Amino acid sequence: MSPARPARKVTKKAPAKKPARAARAKAVAVLAKPAKKGNAQRVYSFEEGNASMRAILGGKGANLAEMSRIGLPVPPGFTITAATCIEYQKLGQFPAGLEEDVWTALAALEKKAGAKLGDSANPLLVSVRSGAAVSLPGMMDTVLNLGLNDATVEGIAKASKNPRFAYDSYRRFLTMFGDVVLGLPHHGFEERLNRLKARLNVTQDTAIGAADLKALCQEYKAYIQEKTGKPFTQDPRTQLALAIEAVFASWNNKRAITYRDLNKIPHDMGTAVNVQMMVFGNMGDDCATGVAFTRDPSTGEKVFYGEFLQNAQGEDVVAGIRTPQVISKLGNIIPAAYKQLVAVAKQLETHFRDMQDIEFTIMRGKLYMLQTRVGKRTGFAAVRIALEMLDEKLISESEALLRVSPDNLNQLLRPIFDSKEKAAALKNGKLLAKGLNAGPGAATGRVVFTADDAVEWHRKGEQVVLVRDETSPEDIHGMHASEGFLTARGGMTSHAALVARQMGKVCVAGCSSLRIDGKAHAFAVGDHLVREGDWISIDGFTGEVILGKMTTLPSEVVQVLVEKRMHPSMAPTYQLFDRLLRMADKVRRMKVRANADQPDQADTAIAFGAEGIGLTRTEHMFFGPGKIEHMREMILAENEAERREALKDLLPLQRADFEGIFRAMGSKPVTIRMLDPPLHEFLPHEEKEQRQMALLMGIGLNELQERIAALRESNPMLGHRGCRLGITYPEITEMQARAILEAAVRVKRDGVDVHPEIMIPIVGHASEFVHQEAVVRKVAEQVFKESGTKVAYLVGTMIELPRAALTADEIAKHAEFFSFGTNDLTQTTLGISRDDAASFLGPYMESKLIPADPFATLDQAGVGQLVQMGTQKGRATRKDLKVGICGEHGGDAESVKFCHRTGLDYVSCSPYRLPIARLAAAHAVLEEKQKAK
Amino acid sequence: MSPARPARKVTKKAPAKKPARAARAKAVAVLAKPAKKGNAQRVYSFEEGNASMRAILGGKGANLAEMSRIGLPVPPGFTITAATCIEYQKLGQFPAGLEEDVWTALAALEKKAGAKLGDSANPLLVSVRSGAAVSLPGMMDTVLNLGLNDATVEGIAKASKNPRFAYDSYRRFLTMFGDVVLGLPHHGFEERLNRLKARLNVTQDTAIGAADLKALCQEYKAYIQEKTGKPFTQDPRTQLALAIEAVFASWNNKRAITYRDLNKIPHDMGTAVNVQMMVFGNMGDDCATGVAFTRDPSTGEKVFYGEFLQNAQGEDVVAGIRTPQVISKLGNIIPAAYKQLVAVAKQLETHFRDMQDIEFTIMRGKLYMLQTRVGKRTGFAAVRIALEMLDEKLISESEALLRVSPDNLNQLLRPIFDSKEKAAALKNGKLLAKGLNAGPGAATGRVVFTADDAVEWHRKGEQVVLVRDETSPEDIHGMHASEGFLTARGGMTSHAALVARQMGKVCVAGCSSLRIDGKAHAFAVGDHLVREGDWISIDGFTGEVILGKMTTLPSEVVQVLVEKRMHPSMAPTYQLFDRLLRMADKVRRMKVRANADQPDQADTAIAFGAEGIGLTRTEHMFFGPGKIEHMREMILAENEAERREALKDLLPLQRADFEGIFRAMGSKPVTIRMLDPPLHEFLPHEEKEQRQMALLMGIGLNELQERIAALRESNPMLGHRGCRLGITYPEITEMQARAILEAAVRVKRDGVDVHPEIMIPIVGHASEFVHQEAVVRKVAEQVFKESGTKVAYLVGTMIELPRAALTADEIAKHAEFFSFGTNDLTQTTLGISRDDAASFLGPYMESKLIPADPFATLDQAGVGQLVQMGTQKGRATRKDLKVGICGEHGGDAESVKFCHRTGLDYVSCSPYRLPIARLAAAHAVLEEKQKAK
Repeated sequence: MSPARPARKVTKKAPAKKPARAARAKAVAVLAKPAKKGNAQRVYSFEEGNASMRAILGGKGANLAEMSRIGLPVPPGFTITAATCIEYQKLGQFPAGLEEDVWTALAALEKKAGAKLGDSANPLLVSVRSGAAVSLPGMMDTVLNLGLNDATVEGIAKASKNPRFAYDSYRRFLTMFGDVVLGLPHHGFEERLNRLKARLNVTQDTAIGAADLKALCQEYKAYIQEKTGKPFTQDPRTQLALAIEAVFASWNNKRAITYRDLNKIPHDMGTAVNVQMMVFGNMGDDCATGVAFTRDPSTGEKVFYGEFLQNAQGEDVVAGIRTPQVISKLGNIIPAAYKQLVAVAKQLETHFRDMQDIEFTIMRGKLYMLQTRVGKRTGFAAVRIALEMLDEKLISESEALLRVSPDNLNQLLRPIFDSKEKAAALKNGKLLAKGLNAGPGAATGRVVFTADDAVEWHRKGEQVVLVRDETSPEDIHGMHASEGFLTARGGMTSHAALVARQMGKVCVAGCSSLRIDGKAHAFAVGDHLVREGDWISIDGFTGEVILGKMTTLPSEVVQVLVEKRMHPSMAPTYQLFDRLLRMADKVRRMKVRANADQPDQADTAIAFGAEGIGLTRTEHMFFGPGKIEHMREMILAENEAERREALKDLLPLQRADFEGIFRAMGSKPVTIRMLDPPLHEFLPHEEKEQRQMALLMGIGLNELQERIAALRESNPMLGHRGCRLGITYPEITEMQARAILEAAVRVKRDGVDVHPEIMIPIVGHASEFVHQEAVVRKVAEQVFKESGTKVAYLVGTMIELPRAALTADEIAKHAEFFSFGTNDLTQTTLGISRDDAASFLGPYMESKLIPADPFATLDQAGVGQLVQMGTQKGRATRKDLKVGICGEHGGDAESVKFCHRTGLDYVSCSPYRLPIARLAAAHAVLEEKQKAK
Repeated sequence: MSPARPARKVTKKAPAKKPARAARAKAVAVLAKPAKKGNAQRVYSFEEGNASMRAILGGKGANLAEMSRIGLPVPPGFTITAATCIEYQKLGQFPAGLEEDVWTALAALEKKAGAKLGDSANPLLVSVRSGAAVSLPGMMDTVLNLGLNDATVEGIAKASKNPRFAYDSYRRFLTMFGDVVLGLPHHGFEERLNRLKARLNVTQDTAIGAADLKALCQEYKAYIQEKTGKPFTQDPRTQLALAIEAVFASWNNKRAITYRDLNKIPHDMGTAVNVQMMVFGNMGDDCATGVAFTRDPSTGEKVFYGEFLQNAQGEDVVAGIRTPQVISKLGNIIPAAYKQLVAVAKQLETHFRDMQDIEFTIMRGKLYMLQTRVGKRTGFAAVRIALEMLDEKLISESEALLRVSPDNLNQLLRPIFDSKEKAAALKNGKLLAKGLNAGPGAATGRVVFTADDAVEWHRKGEQVVLVRDETSPEDIHGMHASEGFLTARGGMTSHAALVARQMGKVCVAGCSSLRIDGKAHAFAVGDHLVREGDWISIDGFTGEVILGKMTTLPSEVVQVLVEKRMHPSMAPTYQLFDRLLRMADKVRRMKVRANADQPDQADTAIAFGAEGIGLTRTEHMFFGPGKIEHMREMILAENEAERREALKDLLPLQRADFEGIFRAMGSKPVTIRMLDPPLHEFLPHEEKEQRQMALLMGIGLNELQERIAALRESNPMLGHRGCRLGITYPEITEMQARAILEAAVRVKRDGVDVHPEIMIPIVGHASEFVHQEAVVRKVAEQVFKESGTKVAYLVGTMIELPRAALTADEIAKHAEFFSFGTNDLTQTTLGISRDDAASFLGPYMESKLIPADPFATLDQAGVGQLVQMGTQKGRATRKDLKVGICGEHGGDAESVKFCHRTGLDYVSCSPYRLPIARLAAAHAVLEEKQKAK
């Protein structure tokens, strides 16, 4: 079971999309440094900048400058600042003086390059690239070979002694310039190239000779004139100015704005523009271009990892015509440059103290570094790299922790296929194809061919695998709805691979044996046809595509911790996971607890590091045969006497459950919530069940149905539930308190230092709490007297109504602890019923009216305000008030950090979210320390 | 149509119960003055005190002192302070030194009285009465004739030359002392008296001679000894000490505590004890006792009003054996004392500057004043007295306004019977009986005989009239549930009469021809039998009891203002009402608006003084034939095109409604809320209707039912409604905006300066508002362009979700006004669905877990906090933000005052609540000024 190879990007076709959180953090960091105003320097040569100038020069520019600064072979160039972009946005034109600055910088560049822009004898060609402080997909990315015109192309031909190379460069430039600077449709160029190839009867671009390429360039220029009404500009300075302006303008194109809105990136950052001398990897066999990672971004292994193409330009890697070679082979082809590249890679990793993702070109045997940046990695790799770099003393423990995002840990918990079932499937010839293992995990689902279909099927409750030639940003909604993606084209560098890793989806990419017929809603491999709706299974760890539905199984970590069917020593991933979390545990201030309703869940919670139980929902214990009947009798009782009779039967069942949980948790605190949901949730809704129930109770079906109808509510969420039930029927609270305390007494007698915490739900007024607390304490006194054993226990409340948070000072006079029930608090604060939200919350998120699902990530501005208020007011009354959170937000990293900042004592979440909570709680401490510096 | 005679109280049987609000205000005022601690003076003679010492001496004691101070004939006495009562509560016994102080004061009293306690030759008798700063029912009230024993009774017999009087006084004292001081059951004394009368074969107490009374006293003493195990104490000082202690102890009896909890009266105020020389109205025909009001407490007319009994003690008035005479007849019987009484009454009213309720006794021709206090009055009387005292320059305009409680105005709007129907009923012999007109208004209902039955029938949706011999505080819950009360006993002084006036219920009291058989659940008048469930009608203005159900009609004010079938000049009550409200209008800062959905409601709103419309619920316009079908088509549309088709049909209907409202309101602002409720509220729920609808839409019944089912929600209150509808279906908002603005344009063209305010409901996020505002403004531009006419309009929002209040600063960046929708805000803040609250909110209020129905009176601590926060945050962003309230709380006096204090610009309520809102808003200003002093 080896984790997948990662994806990465080479050109604009596959824009890097940072996770929203990182982007936001960076955006904030950038904003913290005020941009210089007025006559600040607008243009920096690479030698003038450094890595710390990210806000001014953008990420790409700052790193190019840094590489120059430390003496690496970077083609010379200069960067126009991001602030200048904003000036441009405001003015609608270049600010006064900018052109002069550019020409001055260009002159210096020309001097270093020993060539001149537009000099037909010795022409300088440049690339123009955007580069914001935060990576932004959707912006104009790159124009290569700028500076070519009808004269300089001849100069290049002469200088390179390769007219074909010169005209190939020219037609590439015309295409890029026409497409991204002039905004002409790309297919206009594509069609003309294809017509030419048809006429020449060739299939490969490389088969076109210099003369034909020259003619193609003429055609392209004619096309540009036809479409723009003006001839293609032969003036390289005009070309450069237009390209710079196009980069500036792309900052505010629709996709970029949407992306910024979605990721809360400020709109006033702007993008820098990098102008750099062109170097060519396609001038012969002593040339190459490639990308590499300083460690394996998929497994985290410390090996130099990457791919390259000999005699090629970067964009050729994506075009998919030639398959890149693994980087080590470069040592056989251009040994000196490779040796240097390995050394540079090592230097860069040591210098930047993180795994780097680099781009390089070798021109006539000479190595040029074109980019370096922190490499994206899988969750597996993130953990391994962080811990190994720590062992190498490259980074500190704090840094190691911060290198792993809490959500990364999800990947280590991701499912795998049942190995026997898979082996059988493979033996039975179910292996359909093999692609790249681009997104780790195991997924099974029904085939769909469009993003819309994925959403549609998903809405119907189906699990789907999205199959496409390649994916694009337009497919994101469908990718969200899918278990995994299978693509025919694109490799580890593809959009699908990238997104898979970010979303934590399974991906098998570049499965070239697939022939997809989108119109027929089917794909074929050989003569095997797979239609829409058929089941397939994809293994994102191995790249295998298997016919049919397969069972997915828990991850290695889960097998060690939960299922205990793997020994830790056999589980290297588990060992890394465990080590990292132990480090996190040393750092975090907040405790973590789990929500668990049954003894077995308590065991799992302990395995995942729970330091207590933050929420036991007693009502979950009432379901299941042998229990629900008594519960129903209790609910349908006509009077207190009948109710007490039914409660008597429920008491031993509840007590047994509590006893099991107390034994599992030992001396750790266990918070038990009293009966919470509206009673009719427990009632039989089908007539068959109703008949049985009526029989059991010795009443007629009609009468039973009448009693059920009487319990029906218009808005059960806001109805007769929680402590309202306990107040109108105190005998329910009495029974539950008795079950809890009798169980606690039994366990304590066996020497366990049990710590029950009894939690009263849906309290809105302090008087409600006082009422229920009195019932509990009275029962406790009785139980202690009867048993002769006393147990220390607390009585506290859930803060899950706005009024409770608003009057927390009053409630804290009586309650010994608070636990924020952020699920219900979100429902009431936002006035949104989770059960009914689908009809509008989906559209809301799609149209960015709200940034995230408030039931997944805490709405800090609204609900969070009440959490802060409730905590402050509660502690104002009772200084040592224990405060926690037990909504589902307790397992969301951003929400956990918010809880830390708010001063909560603990978060409680489902056992499987505990790793995220533990690491996020540590991050919160470390980020606080960073901020304090 | 003359308003009813008021009730008032003479003895402890009918304890005065102040309205909760007044009580609270006074309690607060009292608390503001810190009680003296430690060795403060514990006992004050009447001469030492004055009216301002209410907190120290209690209301009764302070007024007795004041009367003494201004030279009125008050029997001498002294008061033990309320603080002493609290000392007693803490110690569980008399504080050290108290007895000495009492004996010192007693000595002074004996000197003034010229008689000595326990002196058998010349015995002093005293009364012992409780008297807190705030009138409290349920406390021990009075012990008369204290000082009598086997020796002094003989002294009295000799001194009065009336042994019968002496022994009658003794047996009364023994009864009271046994009952209230020793806590023996009253019936023990009653039975012995009845046995004696039976033996003597007499029916009246007065027919029992001295010897028999003396024997009865022996029996009583034996009974006391039998019950307490100790002989009746012959020591008058011990009697006095025990009586004082009994008063102290009664401060903390259950009824008193409950009453204080309910009325938010602090528990640490204590009650004072008044010890006063007895005077006797039953020593002969030159003696009398009575109660009087300085003006008619029912109509407010400036006449000396009251009733008296010749040769009687106060308690005889209540006993119901003799019917009191009207006060003016006293002038014929004891002219000099009467003349003096009239003068004293006048002096008291002038001195206290308010209508007084006085108690007096005439002993052997000499007048003694026993009590004076501000007299309770009907709403009619409150208005008339306030305005006439203003005209008399007795009080200022501010005082006049404050003399009328906003809720008083409700009485002036109370229903009356249809005069023709009533005349016909009377002609047809339906007049069953006549009693006292004790509670104004006209009521019709089904007869019930117990408070529990009243509640039970009321719960079933029946309107009931509670018929009882007499009512008691134990009946309060049943009185709440009834339209009115009919009692056989008790007069204007009865409990029923008092409660009726406080609750604004109809009451006919003392209807002595009624013979009630509670066990048979029936009553008879003559040989006419009326059973439980039969309809009767009672006229609280006239005291008539009429058989059968009768139509009730609007009040005089309503007939003038709303129905316009009475000319103001013919309506004196209306004139007073109108004058008072005009005065209030001059004082108040807040504007008042009305909630109105139709043009005719707008007319009513104007009549009641609306300065605009604060809430037009557009959805109410969709009901009714010819409209609901289009609405249903719209809701059930399968796609936008179908929906737009249906909306096209709704547009002219809505536009016509808006046009009518705009014309009615003229230049006053009109706030129109966009579609708010969940759509399925509009759908047909019965199959017959569904069939019609399916036919109309040309689809099958099944399909229609499926579409209806798809719209069903778990918690519609928190579901797809409000702006969530407008966002998912912008075409609905477009149609409504168009209807509003086209109507505005039409009206403006007719020269009306129209001011539409478009309100977006259920906004939780600023982004939602921005979305809907854009839709509205786009339509507005279109309409203005199409019509060539522009209309000034605002776009604002309802603040009805906690999140909206919490993020009001963000929302106010865009919204031009806020209107607090406190109905929904209460539901979400408290997490209580109003539709489902009955199952627990009733029990909550009964057991005092919450002080009031939060849907009637704003929950200031919770919801109010959000209103304050929303207002502050909103204004922090937009200084001139217009802020109002349009929930039902806008017509609740306490809530209106809260809105004033919070700085709201207006309140909006139903037209009939406008008088209350106008006066409450003025009170808020005046109370603020008082507080600032």
